Amino acid sequence: MEFEARKAIVILNKDDAAELDVKPLDRVELVLGKRKDTAIVNIAEKLIKEGEIGLYESVVHELKAKEGSRLKIARAPHPASIEFIRKKLEGRMLDKAELDAIIGDVVGDRLSDIEISSFLTALHEKGMVMDEVAALSRSMAENGKRMKWKKVVFDKHSIGGVPGDKTSILLVPTIAAAGFTIPKTSSRAITSPAGTADRFECIAPVDLSWEEIKKVVNKTKGCLAWGGAVDLAPADDIFIKVEYPLSIDPMLLPSVMSKKVAVGAKHLVIDIPTGRGTKIKSISSASDLAGQFIELGSRLGIDVRCLSTFGEQPLGHTIGPALEAREALHTALTGKGPTDYIDKVTALAGTLMGMGGMKNAEAKARHIITSGKAGRKLKQIIAAQGGDPDIKPKDIEVGGECCKVSSNFSGRVWWISNKALVHIAKSAGAPKDKGAGIFLNKKIGDRVRKGETIFEIFSDKPYKLKAAVKAAEGHEIMGIGRHYNMVLKRMPEEKHEKTFILER
Amino acid sequence: MEFEARKAIVILNKDDAAELDVKPLDRVELVLGKRKDTAIVNIAEKLIKEGEIGLYESVVHELKAKEGSRLKIARAPHPASIEFIRKKLEGRMLDKAELDAIIGDVVGDRLSDIEISSFLTALHEKGMVMDEVAALSRSMAENGKRMKWKKVVFDKHSIGGVPGDKTSILLVPTIAAAGFTIPKTSSRAITSPAGTADRFECIAPVDLSWEEIKKVVNKTKGCLAWGGAVDLAPADDIFIKVEYPLSIDPMLLPSVMSKKVAVGAKHLVIDIPTGRGTKIKSISSASDLAGQFIELGSRLGIDVRCLSTFGEQPLGHTIGPALEAREALHTALTGKGPTDYIDKVTALAGTLMGMGGMKNAEAKARHIITSGKAGRKLKQIIAAQGGDPDIKPKDIEVGGECCKVSSNFSGRVWWISNKALVHIAKSAGAPKDKGAGIFLNKKIGDRVRKGETIFEIFSDKPYKLKAAVKAAEGHEIMGIGRHYNMVLKRMPEEKHEKTFILER
Repeated sequence: MEFEARKAIVILNKDDAAELDVKPLDRVELVLGKRKDTAIVNIAEKLIKEGEIGLYESVVHELKAKEGSRLKIARAPHPASIEFIRKKLEGRMLDKAELDAIIGDVVGDRLSDIEISSFLTALHEKGMVMDEVAALSRSMAENGKRMKWKKVVFDKHSIGGVPGDKTSILLVPTIAAAGFTIPKTSSRAITSPAGTADRFECIAPVDLSWEEIKKVVNKTKGCLAWGGAVDLAPADDIFIKVEYPLSIDPMLLPSVMSKKVAVGAKHLVIDIPTGRGTKIKSISSASDLAGQFIELGSRLGIDVRCLSTFGEQPLGHTIGPALEAREALHTALTGKGPTDYIDKVTALAGTLMGMGGMKNAEAKARHIITSGKAGRKLKQIIAAQGGDPDIKPKDIEVGGECCKVSSNFSGRVWWISNKALVHIAKSAGAPKDKGAGIFLNKKIGDRVRKGETIFEIFSDKPYKLKAAVKAAEGHEIMGIGRHYNMVLKRMPEEKHEKTFILER
Repeated sequence: MEFEARKAIVILNKDDAAELDVKPLDRVELVLGKRKDTAIVNIAEKLIKEGEIGLYESVVHELKAKEGSRLKIARAPHPASIEFIRKKLEGRMLDKAELDAIIGDVVGDRLSDIEISSFLTALHEKGMVMDEVAALSRSMAENGKRMKWKKVVFDKHSIGGVPGDKTSILLVPTIAAAGFTIPKTSSRAITSPAGTADRFECIAPVDLSWEEIKKVVNKTKGCLAWGGAVDLAPADDIFIKVEYPLSIDPMLLPSVMSKKVAVGAKHLVIDIPTGRGTKIKSISSASDLAGQFIELGSRLGIDVRCLSTFGEQPLGHTIGPALEAREALHTALTGKGPTDYIDKVTALAGTLMGMGGMKNAEAKARHIITSGKAGRKLKQIIAAQGGDPDIKPKDIEVGGECCKVSSNFSGRVWWISNKALVHIAKSAGAPKDKGAGIFLNKKIGDRVRKGETIFEIFSDKPYKLKAAVKAAEGHEIMGIGRHYNMVLKRMPEEKHEKTFILER
């Protein structure tokens, strides 16, 4: 079964379960020869006959069971971590040992999704004090691989929420070219049209092992690898799966910081895109979040600085893995690109380089970018990761199906809906179809004539392009006119927007 | 004493208080001949001699006491409402009778400020269910004057937060000219550079009695009166005084809606200015608030609609009572004025007129404004309130001291700080000095050449102009340049912004 496939679960016949006095979610101990395993109980009336047992893959593997094997079975006590989850549900604080027990059982697949979801709900409802957040972050880092480096390690993280945010692809080579070490691991998209791993995969392989990352970084000082392959704070990946349908995110801080502890970062800059259409709506919310990251960082021995950045429109002109990869590569190689993209990378890279003790760090960061030094470093990283260092932007293939969208009005662009563009790009096939996405011809403040192209949709397949065009027709995408429209929303109104979880 | 002057307070000598076994905030009953009063105890060691008693004005008045009068004094029980406040502090729900007792004692000055502040803190911490909010709103309305009308009454309220928001001065005559009844009462500024009462006072008297309001409305269908003179939901004014230093506002909903119940409104449109630099930062927060107002309205028999409006810059070009009055009067009389001002009034007035059953209400509202019909109705209202109906914008005097501020950069205006402009206008003397304020030459999206005037500060007095110029130098007021600046804020940072209470 696909659902909960990794877990140690067994299915008992209803009568056998009654005989053993176990209910669903109780545990049983199983013995086969000299091998033992503990598993979570599920119960079936017909699927499993009396005297038989159904084993999930992990149990089969653990016991080396075969069709026809004879098992001994007995009721087992619940893992201790369930007591600690219950304690949090009652609103009490958990200490490091209790959190270790929970995370150990999460990573060891000894808790059911229902139990994990209770834990997340308890954290969401009852909250954590900063001591607990720090202990949880450490525990998540310790229950996974940890990187050790001879050099001081720099890192960058974005809270996300801005489509087209190709910052890392230019920031990593800038930092590395300045002489600092930045072993950047990134995620793939969960709900967005592209994650950094999806983007960079259009330029070079990103699915690197821990040994490969080490080699790339020792050679070039930087890397742009997918984090999913290297088992950094794996509890986080399990939590994300449970959170996703719940749409809650009590784990934002420990999730981000456990990965940074695991990767061995000492200096960290966090980008907090801010404003309408992003996750963090106001500068004061950004300040609150920044304060928490800085405080947590100081407890974990990580020096943290945060920038609240303008997030009310996509970064640069492109959305979607291949289109973004083209734009990032072009900017790095030529030292010329969208002002907002270069400004943002300059500010973040300059902040990190300043933390490393460099004077006039921002001016130096800008010079590294515009002089093409960052581009030359990027080529080294591409080569070290197994890509073609001579790759050109036009070598990156974008979708062959294209539709130009033009404006019905003359005037100026007053606002752009990130949400609408994300929806269109995903309808066009991003992130799965790497060539799918959007090229934005106009951004906030730009003049538009009636009939002029404001953006282009790209797709690999005609039927997906059609879906994207339909999505575009159903959304308010840009505010174009002579003035800002005074009415933002009228209420009462039927629809309610769904909240969405923070991508890390 | 000015502090708590309205309250029934007595000051006892320390030894007398010990003899009576009363402590500060306990109550005593006082008898003088046939007159009785209950008062809150304060205690002094030297100010009051043994055997003597200090009486606050309200007690003197109630007992008709004179220097040398002989009083009988005895410990009195605490008012029952204190029990109910304690009940709320424990997180329990209050019923209508309990809320009536509290509001009755608040309005009757039988609770000390400390007790009232405990009540507000309890509401803030423990919250209220919608049944309590409705009961509290009714209770606040019932403990004060209530207006009764033969016609269906329309009303408008703004959550506030946008400087220069002169909406009501144009909206009231528009609604009245459309044939609907709108007896609008407004507040003076608490923390802003101008309230509607401050603005309209530059055009006509606003300090009307209840009988005068009735006469004006029966004659013209509308009025623009100061609400403070007519004792509508007076508990609210007491709560505002206590909340102000606390900077909390659990009373927003009951405060607004109790006044609307008291004024007898049936159809209400609420303006929720939204965005950076306003009180409500995001459209989703505006939706949440709107949902609460609509729900509360339905329980109180008031039909409520809400508009989330763009609030990231001042409305029109002026800030400060006289400057705003000029702009509002000019717009009404000529039917021409700033696009955002006319658009906003059109949307709000059209919504109200649509609630009154009118078809194509927005187009009709716009026609009433642009044709000068609203201006002619405004002249009737001015005359009925005792003003000069032939008043011209230039008759309204603005400050004689003026300073033009010009830009150091060329480019475009990307953002305007409401907060900075409020600070400058207040430094210049607004709202106390009616002529003080700001004329904004440039708004968001406008092109600016280096050296061009972007705004002018007006003041009645040279030293206040100087203070305003200094305030202007200390703030980031507008973002002008070729591009939007990507970094909004860097953290860690020293200062933290104060939260401010919602003005009603």
